Amino acid sequence: MIEIEWLTEDEQRVYRAFSAMSRELFNHFDCDLKADVGIPRTYYELLFVLGSAPEGGMRLTELAHATRSNPSRITYAVARLERDGLLRRTASATDGRAWHAELTEAGAATLQAAARRHARSVREYLLDELGERQREELRRISTKVLARIERIERID
Amino acid sequence: MIEIEWLTEDEQRVYRAFSAMSRELFNHFDCDLKADVGIPRTYYELLFVLGSAPEGGMRLTELAHATRSNPSRITYAVARLERDGLLRRTASATDGRAWHAELTEAGAATLQAAARRHARSVREYLLDELGERQREELRRISTKVLARIERIERID
Repeated sequence: MIEIEWLTEDEQRVYRAFSAMSRELFNHFDCDLKADVGIPRTYYELLFVLGSAPEGGMRLTELAHATRSNPSRITYAVARLERDGLLRRTASATDGRAWHAELTEAGAATLQAAARRHARSVREYLLDELGERQREELRRISTKVLARIERIERID
Repeated sequence: MIEIEWLTEDEQRVYRAFSAMSRELFNHFDCDLKADVGIPRTYYELLFVLGSAPEGGMRLTELAHATRSNPSRITYAVARLERDGLLRRTASATDGRAWHAELTEAGAATLQAAARRHARSVREYLLDELGERQREELRRISTKVLARIERIERID
């Protein structure tokens, strides 16, 4: 057994709890979607972004950017979702060399089912356990940390 | 554009902020470890668990359990870390059919470097931004949510 030097014990108590909560939550959200809707959370997010697009679809490069995925992961996921009949690819109307993806009717139905299922998981595991005050506190903490990360990214 | 029914707007404000914070934090932790120590966060966790084991190592099945990985992922990661000279595999002393993994000297040094680097990231992006009160609040929220998840798992 090695003496590992990293955070102080007080810091560890905060970070370990936060880290375990995040891992457990996102694992459960993923499992619930796979079990009840048949798609992993990453695919749900992809359908969500496409379904929320003002023109009912978007270019694959935009989709990669919006879901923070690398192009090869997006290409694979889109091919898989196309094979399952949840989206279709068309040549972009404005740029013939670019691919555009949009939801099919089945894709829109799967997105709605997944959104309802995901909402149920988020409430069950997270929101319903926290009172109004703690929800607001979690939102404040998260917003503060996100702003800090953005500041650091701007400096880099 | 589809009208997607899921969380209420108030719920979305909490969940979206939390979800974005988690994603950003773990992405940054992973990038910092890859850039400065040369290993992803999942490998760091694996080295950490091995380094913290009372006997200085453990069986691969225990390692899979402790890191919540499936056996094939552990086999791959262990082979990779062995190739890089960070751990060695030996036949288990108590059960000749089982594999046992332990850190090499280079593995222990990488673990220490990674632990220091990770601590710096956790402070920089998360802990230093929150005052004493908000750290304690984040710990409380996380502990509460983890306890709820455990209760739900027991019922299932």
